[in-house]
Amino acid sequence: MKGKKNSKEGMNVHEKYELITRNLQEVIGGDELKELLSSGKEVSVYWGTMPTGSPHISYLYPLSKVADFLRAGLNVKILIADLHAALDGVQWDILDKRQIYYEGLIPIMLQSVGVDTDKLVFVKGSKMQLTPEYFKDLLRLSTLTTVHDATKAASEVVKLGDNPKLGGIIYPLMQALDEEYLNADIQFGGVDQRKIFVYARENLPKIGYKARVELMNYLLPGLIGQKMSSSVPGSKIDMMDSEDEVNKKLKNAVCGEGDLNNGLLPFAKYVLFVLKQDKKEKLTIERAEKFGGNLEYDSYNKLEKDFAAKKLHPLDLKNAIAKEINVLIAPVRENKKLKELYKEAYGSVS
Amino acid sequence: MKGKKNSKEGMNVHEKYELITRNLQEVIGGDELKELLSSGKEVSVYWGTMPTGSPHISYLYPLSKVADFLRAGLNVKILIADLHAALDGVQWDILDKRQIYYEGLIPIMLQSVGVDTDKLVFVKGSKMQLTPEYFKDLLRLSTLTTVHDATKAASEVVKLGDNPKLGGIIYPLMQALDEEYLNADIQFGGVDQRKIFVYARENLPKIGYKARVELMNYLLPGLIGQKMSSSVPGSKIDMMDSEDEVNKKLKNAVCGEGDLNNGLLPFAKYVLFVLKQDKKEKLTIERAEKFGGNLEYDSYNKLEKDFAAKKLHPLDLKNAIAKEINVLIAPVRENKKLKELYKEAYGSVS
Repeated sequence: MKGKKNSKEGMNVHEKYELITRNLQEVIGGDELKELLSSGKEVSVYWGTMPTGSPHISYLYPLSKVADFLRAGLNVKILIADLHAALDGVQWDILDKRQIYYEGLIPIMLQSVGVDTDKLVFVKGSKMQLTPEYFKDLLRLSTLTTVHDATKAASEVVKLGDNPKLGGIIYPLMQALDEEYLNADIQFGGVDQRKIFVYARENLPKIGYKARVELMNYLLPGLIGQKMSSSVPGSKIDMMDSEDEVNKKLKNAVCGEGDLNNGLLPFAKYVLFVLKQDKKEKLTIERAEKFGGNLEYDSYNKLEKDFAAKKLHPLDLKNAIAKEINVLIAPVRENKKLKELYKEAYGSVS
Repeated sequence: MKGKKNSKEGMNVHEKYELITRNLQEVIGGDELKELLSSGKEVSVYWGTMPTGSPHISYLYPLSKVADFLRAGLNVKILIADLHAALDGVQWDILDKRQIYYEGLIPIMLQSVGVDTDKLVFVKGSKMQLTPEYFKDLLRLSTLTTVHDATKAASEVVKLGDNPKLGGIIYPLMQALDEEYLNADIQFGGVDQRKIFVYARENLPKIGYKARVELMNYLLPGLIGQKMSSSVPGSKIDMMDSEDEVNKKLKNAVCGEGDLNNGLLPFAKYVLFVLKQDKKEKLTIERAEKFGGNLEYDSYNKLEKDFAAKKLHPLDLKNAIAKEINVLIAPVRENKKLKELYKEAYGSVS
């Protein structure tokens, strides 16, 4: 790997690589990524998101990675995968409204974490995918892919159930093709996408396209102790939640004293501290003098250590995180246009 | 059903219905067909054929039905289903050449059975199917269809094997959509298509399209005693076979004296006698005087009766059928342009 500075971005290849891959669970094609970054060519990454339920607070984790990509000088394409949402069970007639909400929400969330969105491009899935060329390529892939392998690839992402729909297993093939049709060098997603990413790496070359670099972030547990899901109401903090709702949900989160097995710490680690450190800020835990007074942390590790040692009480941690979340989502819930789009997409403001 | 004459076609509704449905194994939607014929509107039927192996002599059976449809005043659309052939395993790079051969061959075969092909339209599958609208409808159907049901629908038509390809089970959904996109009122095919036809009837209405009338012909056994297949060389008489080859293959056909279980009699019944009777001709069996002299049949039933009673020897039947086949396929094998197209599509003249 060359160490030369790229004056335009102010980072050398090594620094870019580190920024692009920090806080990820897994990278497939790390050497290819280094080569891409060394090539001097424009490098583009795509992140696909299905407009299903309304995005919740854990969305800030992939978005903080999007922020990293942008800072590292990558072109970032966000695919609002409306057809994929339909293949995963969203009613066809609501897709457009959800896609519009997502496309309105994401830049505001990115701005709330301080990102310049100039190099960010939104692509509506159906607009890119519903073409003769894409369709033919899908059929070509379908003649090379067994039902068994398509089912396996889809299994951790799509709600297949006991009697899977055909649409659910077409899903991974389209996600693979999206890498090519978005002209992306890299795909980014949660590690639950791993089987689809591997499918894409193995199969795109069979129809004449290059294998892409695959970047995977962790799956964060929900704040109340289970995987955050936009389809389980209590398990998520919605971007549209009021301050009271945020406070109440945090208060109810499962978080035993000194027990590291909770949803608050991973959120602090992969979202809050990343944002804080990039802004060279500390996380402040407000605490009455009689309980020891305020605490300040400049790294997650110190916070985790104190929490494990029961020097930091769950209630104080909850209050601090609630406060941070309320700051982060204020620009979203206070945006009147976005509130209208939300109503259109989900029927009411939660 | 109204009995009024349609002067344009010279047939009343009843006569048209009888002609359209004669020699078929099954009709789904017979009453709908009568209504269509009574409506006075143009009625169209589609027959899809995959450009796989080179067409063999049993092709004359569906083509004789095409002839019936044309005589009954229907608009006939023949879909050369190139994408379906790919989904069933034909190499993508050979599809075009096979499609061109099929499209050249079929009118010549129809002319050889004396049909006016004015109301016949050829449609190349990929040209019609590779559109945004069609693709979206395919995805809509895929979200309503289980992998199980798609597999079941495809099972008698597509070579699925032990580990089916995804393409093989996309196949029936596209065949259903073709009814809509060809703007057909009726689909025609072999009874092996039955599960796909039923799938189409049940599922097109779910995405807002009408259920079609489905017409099914019998599956004829091969002349040598098994189902004719373009992929088993010995089992078929190719349109490009020389006179000697036809004679030789017929001579080797399995056909025991007095045993009705053979491939010759069904071919005589559903192809030769239909053509003969329409031309008001008899089938002549040439026989030396010492073996009883020539025989002439004006109906299949009489021929079958004599054969069962061992009054007609297999060798004499074989010779007669070989002679008829040679007359029928002469226009094909003597067509130089077609021979060139055949070489392109299949590598050599067999």
